[in-house]
Amino acid sequence: MIVKYIIRIFIFTTTLIASSASFADMRGSGDLGIIIERASGSIQIIETTNRTKLFNIDGLGDLSHASVVFSRDQRYGFVFGRDGGLTKVDVLAGKIVKRVVQGGNAIGGAISQDGKLVAVSNYEPGGVRVFDSQTLEMVADIPAKYGNGLLSKTVGLVDAPGNKFIFSLYDAGETWIADFSASNTPKITKFKDIGDQPYDGLITPDARYYVAGLFGEDGLAMLDLWHPEKGVKRILDGYGRGEEPLPVYKMPHLEGWAAAGGNLFLPAIGRHEVLVVSASNWKEVARIPVHGQPVFAMARPDGRQIWVNFAHPKNDVLQVIDVDSMSIIKTFKPGRAILHMEFTPRGEQIWVSVRDRNVVEVYDTETLKKITELPANTPSGIFLTARASRMGL
Amino acid sequence: MIVKYIIRIFIFTTTLIASSASFADMRGSGDLGIIIERASGSIQIIETTNRTKLFNIDGLGDLSHASVVFSRDQRYGFVFGRDGGLTKVDVLAGKIVKRVVQGGNAIGGAISQDGKLVAVSNYEPGGVRVFDSQTLEMVADIPAKYGNGLLSKTVGLVDAPGNKFIFSLYDAGETWIADFSASNTPKITKFKDIGDQPYDGLITPDARYYVAGLFGEDGLAMLDLWHPEKGVKRILDGYGRGEEPLPVYKMPHLEGWAAAGGNLFLPAIGRHEVLVVSASNWKEVARIPVHGQPVFAMARPDGRQIWVNFAHPKNDVLQVIDVDSMSIIKTFKPGRAILHMEFTPRGEQIWVSVRDRNVVEVYDTETLKKITELPANTPSGIFLTARASRMGL
Repeated sequence: MIVKYIIRIFIFTTTLIASSASFADMRGSGDLGIIIERASGSIQIIETTNRTKLFNIDGLGDLSHASVVFSRDQRYGFVFGRDGGLTKVDVLAGKIVKRVVQGGNAIGGAISQDGKLVAVSNYEPGGVRVFDSQTLEMVADIPAKYGNGLLSKTVGLVDAPGNKFIFSLYDAGETWIADFSASNTPKITKFKDIGDQPYDGLITPDARYYVAGLFGEDGLAMLDLWHPEKGVKRILDGYGRGEEPLPVYKMPHLEGWAAAGGNLFLPAIGRHEVLVVSASNWKEVARIPVHGQPVFAMARPDGRQIWVNFAHPKNDVLQVIDVDSMSIIKTFKPGRAILHMEFTPRGEQIWVSVRDRNVVEVYDTETLKKITELPANTPSGIFLTARASRMGL
Repeated sequence: MIVKYIIRIFIFTTTLIASSASFADMRGSGDLGIIIERASGSIQIIETTNRTKLFNIDGLGDLSHASVVFSRDQRYGFVFGRDGGLTKVDVLAGKIVKRVVQGGNAIGGAISQDGKLVAVSNYEPGGVRVFDSQTLEMVADIPAKYGNGLLSKTVGLVDAPGNKFIFSLYDAGETWIADFSASNTPKITKFKDIGDQPYDGLITPDARYYVAGLFGEDGLAMLDLWHPEKGVKRILDGYGRGEEPLPVYKMPHLEGWAAAGGNLFLPAIGRHEVLVVSASNWKEVARIPVHGQPVFAMARPDGRQIWVNFAHPKNDVLQVIDVDSMSIIKTFKPGRAILHMEFTPRGEQIWVSVRDRNVVEVYDTETLKKITELPANTPSGIFLTARASRMGL
C-alpha cells in the first residue's frame, strides 16, 4: 500500500520536475556572446540584456588572435585558435561539444551561408580546411599552392552568397574563390597578381565586393563578385604616395569593416588615418586623422558612428568618429591594450575589451557613457551570436 | 527498508530526468519563425534549418493583416492582430505568455531599440500605444490628435535608433517622432503637411531615412533623421504624372523595403511598376515593368535579387528581379493569393505564403528551385526571429 502510494508520488513528481527543469533552462540565444580570454585559453559566455556572465569555459588552447563564428540556430560557437584548434562550443549549455586541432598555426575562419560548413584559414600548413559543422569531420582540404609547389599563408577568409568561401594568399599575391554550392569538392577560381602581400580581406555588407588590404603596396585590391570575369582591380592606389610610411606595430584588421552612408571606412596602414572610400565608385572621399595607427574601424549598425582602436604603443585610446561631420566627437582612455569592440546588433551598446585592466567595458552609444564593466581575464575578441545572421563575418 | 530503497531510486531518477529534460528541450532560437494563419486566428512556430513545424498555437483573435516583432533574446514574438490584440508568444515553449486587447482596430507595431517597449499603431482609437515588453502593461498612450480634436489613423510605425518610434497620420498628413530615450513619457516631434494620405512608411536599412508613401498624391515624403531640422521633403514627385492611375485593389506595403546596391526598390501605387530610387540623391534611377500592382518588393539580404508579389486579381504570380540587369529573371505561378515572402537572414532560402493552396513554399534563391512546402491554414505573414537584430522592421 505504502509502496503504491510512494510510486504515485514518484510519477507525479518526476513529471513535474521534468517539465519545470525544461522551462527553467530554456532561453533565447539572440542576446548571447563569447568573450575570448587570451592568456588563459578560456572563454566567457555573456548576455547583453542584463549584461551578465553566464558561463566560464576553459581548455581552448592558444587563443591569441582567436575569432568566432556561430551556427545558424545561434546555439553553437566555433572558436578558431592560433594553435590551429577548432572548438565547437554550446553557448546555451556552456560547454565544449568537440575540439579538433586541424592545423599548426591558424588565422580565423568562416561559416558557409547554409551553415553546414566551417572553414579555417591556416598559416601552417598554408591553405584552407573545411569541416562539417555538425561533426567537425574534415570535408575538404585546399592547400594554397603557388610557384614551385610552395604553400602560402592564407588570410582574409570570408563567406559569400552561394555557399562560397573567399580568401587571399599572402605569399603569392592571389585571391581564390572556393565554391561549395554543388558539392563538398569545391570549384576553385584563382585571381593572380592582385598585389603584394595581401594581409587581410573584407566583404562589403551586401556581400558584393571583396577587398584585400596590401602590406607590400600602397593600395587595396577589389573584386566585384557579381562580375568576377572583370578580375581584381586596384583601388586607392598610392593613398600614401610620397610620404614615408610610419612604423606598423600591429596589422590593421579589415574584417571589422565599417560601411556607413554609402562609404567604407578603412584603417590606413602605416598612417594615422581612417580612409573613407565611396562604395559606388571606389574613389577616396576623405581621410580622417586619428590618434594612431588604427586597428579596427567599426561602424555602429546604423552607420552614424565609427569606433576606432589603435596599435601599440597608442593602444590605450578609443575614438568615436561622427559620420555626418566626419570628425572625432569623443576620445576615451579606458586603459592599456584595447583589443576589440563589438556592437549589439541594433547598435545601442558597444562592448570593449581592455586587456591590461582585465575588464570588458560596455558603453551606451547614444550618450557615450559607460553603462557597466565586467571582469574578464585578459579579454581580447568579443563575438555576439547575432553574427550568425550576417554574411562575411 | 524497501521504502528507503524506493526513495533512493526516486532521488536518483528525478535528478536524471531533470537534467536530461533540460538538454533535450534546449535549442537555439536563431532559426525560428512564426507563420500567421489568418482565417483560424492561429500561428505556427517553424524552424528553417530542417524546415519543419515545431508548434501550433491558436487563440490569437483576428489575424488578418497581422505582423510580428521579436524580443532581443529572440525567445518571444509579439503578434499584432487586426482586432487590436497584442499577444506575447514564447517561440521556444510554443505557448502564449500573455494577450491583451489594446485597441479596436490595429495595424502593426514595432519594438524599441533596447527591447523594452512594444508600440502598436491603431486605426481605432487613432494613435500609438506603447507597452512594457515584459508585462504588456501600457506605459504610454499617444493619441494622434489633429484639427479640432479629431483622431487620425496611424500608419507606417517603425523603430529608430535612440529608442524612438516614428509613424505617420493618415488622416492628418503628418509624421511624428516619439522619443523614449529619456523616459516613458515620450518627447514628440511633429512634422505637418507632409502630403496627402500617407498610407505606409519605411526606414532605410541604415535607419537614417524615413519614407512615407502617399495615397492621395503622386510622390513620397522623406525625412532625414540625422537632420530632422531640415523637415520632410517630397521625393519622386509626380512619378505617374500625366497617366491615369490604375485601380488599386490592395495597398502596397513599404515595410518590406528593398535596398540593394545603393538604391531603394519601391512598389509603385496605381502602376504596374517597381520604382528604383537612388538612396544618395533620392532621384529616380529606373522603373521596372512588372506583372501587376506590386504589394511587396523585397530584396534578398545581399541585394542581388528583388522578389515581388502582386495585388488581386493578379496575386497568383511571384516575380524575381535581377538587380544587376534590372530585369525579370523568373516568373512563378505557385497558386492564388501569394500574401507574403520572408528571406532567411543570410538569404539562401525564401519562404512564400500561398494562401488559397494552404501551403508555405520554400525556394532556394540561388537555383530558384522549390526545396519543400509545408501545410498551413490560409497562411499570410511569415516572420523569422532574425528580425530581432534589425532596425525598422
